[in-house]
Amino acid sequence: MSDELNALDLLITEQGDKVRSLKAQKITKAELQPELGKLKQLKSERDIVAEKLTTKERKFDRNTLEALLSRRFFIAPSFQIYGGVSGLYDYGPPMCGLQNNFLSLWRQHFVLEEDMLELECTNLSPEEVLKTSGHVERFTDDMVKDLVTGDIFRADHLVKAVLNQRLEDDETLRKKPGAPDSKKKKKLEKLEDSVREEYLNILETLDNYQGPELAKLIRHLNIKAPETQNELSEPVRFNLMFDTQIGPTGQLKGYLRPETAQGHFVNFKKLLEFNTGQIPFASASIGKSFRNEISPKQGLLRVREFTMAEIEHYVDPENKKHPKFVEVENEILSFYSAENQLKAAGPVQMTIGEAVKKGIVNNQTLGYFVARIYLFLVKIGIDPKRLRFRQHMKNEMAHYACDCWDAEIESSYGWIESVGCADRSAFDLTCHSKKTGEKLVVREALTKPIIKDCLVLEFNKKVLGPAFRKNAKFVEEGLESMKLDEEEFKQDELEKLKKQFDSNGGIAKIIGSDGNEYEISDKMIQVVKKTIKKSIREYVPNVIEPSFGIGRILYALLEHRFNIREGDEARHVLSFPASIAPFKALIVPISHNDAFLPFIKQISVGLRKRGMSNKIDDSASSLGKRYARNDELGTPFAVTVDFETEKDGTVTLRERDSMKQIRQPINVICDLIKDLVDGETTWHEVTKKYPIFQSNNE
Amino acid sequence: MSDELNALDLLITEQGDKVRSLKAQKITKAELQPELGKLKQLKSERDIVAEKLTTKERKFDRNTLEALLSRRFFIAPSFQIYGGVSGLYDYGPPMCGLQNNFLSLWRQHFVLEEDMLELECTNLSPEEVLKTSGHVERFTDDMVKDLVTGDIFRADHLVKAVLNQRLEDDETLRKKPGAPDSKKKKKLEKLEDSVREEYLNILETLDNYQGPELAKLIRHLNIKAPETQNELSEPVRFNLMFDTQIGPTGQLKGYLRPETAQGHFVNFKKLLEFNTGQIPFASASIGKSFRNEISPKQGLLRVREFTMAEIEHYVDPENKKHPKFVEVENEILSFYSAENQLKAAGPVQMTIGEAVKKGIVNNQTLGYFVARIYLFLVKIGIDPKRLRFRQHMKNEMAHYACDCWDAEIESSYGWIESVGCADRSAFDLTCHSKKTGEKLVVREALTKPIIKDCLVLEFNKKVLGPAFRKNAKFVEEGLESMKLDEEEFKQDELEKLKKQFDSNGGIAKIIGSDGNEYEISDKMIQVVKKTIKKSIREYVPNVIEPSFGIGRILYALLEHRFNIREGDEARHVLSFPASIAPFKALIVPISHNDAFLPFIKQISVGLRKRGMSNKIDDSASSLGKRYARNDELGTPFAVTVDFETEKDGTVTLRERDSMKQIRQPINVICDLIKDLVDGETTWHEVTKKYPIFQSNNE
Repeated sequence: MSDELNALDLLITEQGDKVRSLKAQKITKAELQPELGKLKQLKSERDIVAEKLTTKERKFDRNTLEALLSRRFFIAPSFQIYGGVSGLYDYGPPMCGLQNNFLSLWRQHFVLEEDMLELECTNLSPEEVLKTSGHVERFTDDMVKDLVTGDIFRADHLVKAVLNQRLEDDETLRKKPGAPDSKKKKKLEKLEDSVREEYLNILETLDNYQGPELAKLIRHLNIKAPETQNELSEPVRFNLMFDTQIGPTGQLKGYLRPETAQGHFVNFKKLLEFNTGQIPFASASIGKSFRNEISPKQGLLRVREFTMAEIEHYVDPENKKHPKFVEVENEILSFYSAENQLKAAGPVQMTIGEAVKKGIVNNQTLGYFVARIYLFLVKIGIDPKRLRFRQHMKNEMAHYACDCWDAEIESSYGWIESVGCADRSAFDLTCHSKKTGEKLVVREALTKPIIKDCLVLEFNKKVLGPAFRKNAKFVEEGLESMKLDEEEFKQDELEKLKKQFDSNGGIAKIIGSDGNEYEISDKMIQVVKKTIKKSIREYVPNVIEPSFGIGRILYALLEHRFNIREGDEARHVLSFPASIAPFKALIVPISHNDAFLPFIKQISVGLRKRGMSNKIDDSASSLGKRYARNDELGTPFAVTVDFETEKDGTVTLRERDSMKQIRQPINVICDLIKDLVDGETTWHEVTKKYPIFQSNNE
Repeated sequence: MSDELNALDLLITEQGDKVRSLKAQKITKAELQPELGKLKQLKSERDIVAEKLTTKERKFDRNTLEALLSRRFFIAPSFQIYGGVSGLYDYGPPMCGLQNNFLSLWRQHFVLEEDMLELECTNLSPEEVLKTSGHVERFTDDMVKDLVTGDIFRADHLVKAVLNQRLEDDETLRKKPGAPDSKKKKKLEKLEDSVREEYLNILETLDNYQGPELAKLIRHLNIKAPETQNELSEPVRFNLMFDTQIGPTGQLKGYLRPETAQGHFVNFKKLLEFNTGQIPFASASIGKSFRNEISPKQGLLRVREFTMAEIEHYVDPENKKHPKFVEVENEILSFYSAENQLKAAGPVQMTIGEAVKKGIVNNQTLGYFVARIYLFLVKIGIDPKRLRFRQHMKNEMAHYACDCWDAEIESSYGWIESVGCADRSAFDLTCHSKKTGEKLVVREALTKPIIKDCLVLEFNKKVLGPAFRKNAKFVEEGLESMKLDEEEFKQDELEKLKKQFDSNGGIAKIIGSDGNEYEISDKMIQVVKKTIKKSIREYVPNVIEPSFGIGRILYALLEHRFNIREGDEARHVLSFPASIAPFKALIVPISHNDAFLPFIKQISVGLRKRGMSNKIDDSASSLGKRYARNDELGTPFAVTVDFETEKDGTVTLRERDSMKQIRQPINVICDLIKDLVDGETTWHEVTKKYPIFQSNNE
């Protein structure tokens, strides 16, 4: 941490204390405002400094990593020989291996461990479903166009970039008055204190600006197209879903799904049935999602097609305890609560048990998943010191969600949202149920039936039928809709109906299921008080949703595991945990010699039989170079065949990170590799059991 | 096999012999025609009889299987609560488990075993790429519309259905004159012999009718809309790809890929580099593909979105031997060659070694993959007696392919194409290379350089440059395109150029790289004979493509593994091999008793630790019912906790198909389940080692 940052942190703490003490004195808002402003300004300054630190002081060289990822075909822009398509990437063999292992570990950690019900739903989705979910209306961004070049920008990102630049320029000027930016050779502009504060305010509330408000803001801030400084168009709303036509008639509009979640919800009834009506349980799905980003940037972090792994855990809204919470409650995580974000107080370390107890995390089930996500990410190799859980602020949380925490992983791009974990309440199931008329509820047999007096409707079908003839059905269904469940009616609606009868001489108006108004009399229907016995409780479950963006996590993993080993020439190492490494072992003969071939084959077949992927490198390069090439792929082990092998059938086993070796017979080495990959043993244990071998080979 | 079919087979063989002997006598075409006609008619009759057999005599009850698949949530129509979308299906938990295990076994059998390079490319594909591959122009079907109802039909399917119906009606009448179809209550129509023959001819060559020819055919046959008998529209070509716009400008048209193959080809250069320039090697990819079928039918067999697993194996066109062919050459497969299809001679059993030797299968590499596909399908549980390899007829094979064999699996829908295995020659790489200008070639160092005399071009740039100025580049590039590789020119083109110079007084016309014609003189360029030394061979590799349709194979597997166990009530069993079964073990307490809970947990945790998915069923149903419920899911093993368990810690292990049990301590049972699933032991071996346990429980 730099001195500058330390100094700012101190100032923020002091100012935070001051604000809190003022609040405690119950001073007026107007009096508090300037102090709050100062706090905000300090926080923003800290962010700017911290952002520079992330990329610069860490000495992480993104270009070197990106060159490696391209050279060793981890990733490539899709259709590169055709010039590529922005926001689309292909995964080459090492990245495929990494992703396959990620998904297999994910299935073990979540699906198998929790007996989740796995689903595979279609990417193609009809419009009606996505209307219900709100995506057709709200899954949009504002875009603006450079009126001369036609270039298109995402409006909110543009405002953010421009304001941050202006603040940074001002910052520079305040430190070195008169200094022009040497690289860009433009004149820096100074900002008034009030303007500075306004900008900081806007940045903090930018999520609230949309459509006309955003247009007004852009005009007010006099924002022009970057680079060209041309005039911009008014913002236009752009739906981020890819649309298409399903079938040959052109009558069924469809979209590529923007998330896998809706597929779970529309299958809820079948899932519940599969789970023999029991709750809680979870469904899980791994699949592609698609978002037509306006201007994709930041490599794998903002792409137009990506793999997601989503869990929907269905829980009784009245009991969000989790039976296995006790297994995780002592895990210490970094929590960045909404409150702390407002106070600019930074994240806090505590156990998940404490966080739930204090109400920082809304409930046990949500907390359980937060902890399980943490354990998973650390297991696959994410640096726990660069992992935090940030709570959504009120204004960024969907209106129906009751709490939401993002697992954020620090990378050279800053803290990136990688896993969302939201309590979506009963929102989705309720919407789909309303739209389709399909009941999406849990029916729970009560151990003790509830006996109570309440209003019920009694139908006199002999009168009702003839009175409405073919419309009788609609009237009945309209009345049925006043039911809460099989046995109970909505008391407030029946009260109203009763009042109508009482005040209108036994006549009332109701809405039928066809949407028309019907006049009914108390000869047809009576509202009476009755004792009912409820033996079934019927409710819409709440949904807790952990949602993983696989590409983002894999990219962060690549950054966290990337090391440069200094030496004659800098060598690059990807220190993946063995379980997730794309290839488990390299097999190398010390030199080209036909006598080595049967041993190489024996090792390769032996490893394959144990399910261990391996690569043979019998090229003419030096042993050291071949090890180095493999370190770049993150292969944890190398088996070397040399002249000793011919004599006694032993080979050496080299571990990537320690670069230490042992020497044992081929079968022992193959078993050891499997045990190391499966986590049955560790390299430390292996070196304790077998003597370190000093090689003269390299 | 029915007597009727046997009789027809005999007649076909006799008639086939007659035709062959007549051909040998070199009689005229006109004389041969009636005999050929008879053969075709017999073959068609046999097909009709055989098709009935497939669905009826096997007593396979598709409705019962479909009911099971729906009830136990193997599959469900997507968005069912919204009324569903035809051609789209969701996979529930058992089908997901089945598919996950399928893919994991596929990766082991192909990717790991052959060191294939796995790729993951995007579903979204820009139009230009699919123009090059020919999909924009040719990936189409003809559709016709009922002019009254607007219903849409795929034209060729409609013709086929109508003609088959007319032939069947005629067949019925010929057997029982005057008989109306009892079910449909319509009057059957008799066909003249000549019409019958015409229909059979059309059915055999239907693939050749497209666009205007198909329109003419439909008019000629007087085909109307099925059910309504309304007039039909003219056929309209319909592209089967789903289109969309990539990015916000609407300027980049894209499609959802109809296959994964193109993603491999555009990445060829990177793949070759990853494989350090060595050939042969293969890339492999598992992913979704999309086809906007005109009227999807037949459940999982014709859907609009499906998972494919495709391999592209790159091989030297001059050496298609395969080093591991020897490992498979004795596998006996059922080959249905193009020749036998023409002769209506039925498939033939022989070893793949023989098939390649006789030239029935084009080359060793193609043969190797055919055999590997066979071994894989049998391993996962496809009945080898209902699996054949059918060669594409000349008219159904893509023009560039040099041979193609489909693995066809017999199901209640007939023989269904499930895996294609084609030798696509150098077609795809050549097309993409031409379009993009990117060289997609292998460069092989020759062990012995080739020294030869041939024509080469010598440039006099001092004259050429000033003569064409800014166009000189185009002229040079035009001339460069006459090169075969770095060192050699296309001799025929240089001969032509030389002739032009000779006959036109040293002047010739060539096409520049800008497409314009340029006049050059022999002062600028000379065609001379020279001795060149070639040390590098440069060539476009050929591609052998095994392409798996996962959904179809899984559906066939469900049919092949579906059994009905007769008893008090018919019980349904899905006898999957343990390795592919969705859930590996059921855990059941003999009755509800809290004392059993710790044992259940111990077994569940023990199995999970070994990676074995399991389900606990502690419902109140009888043990027999609970076993039966699990047989429906194809779970191979059940572990039962009873009162003995409390005393001595032993549990019983029941095997699904034999319904036999053994009794051993919990740890032994958990190990046994893992060994059985991994194929380390068999149930037969287990019952030899441990005594059969006679249970009083059930």
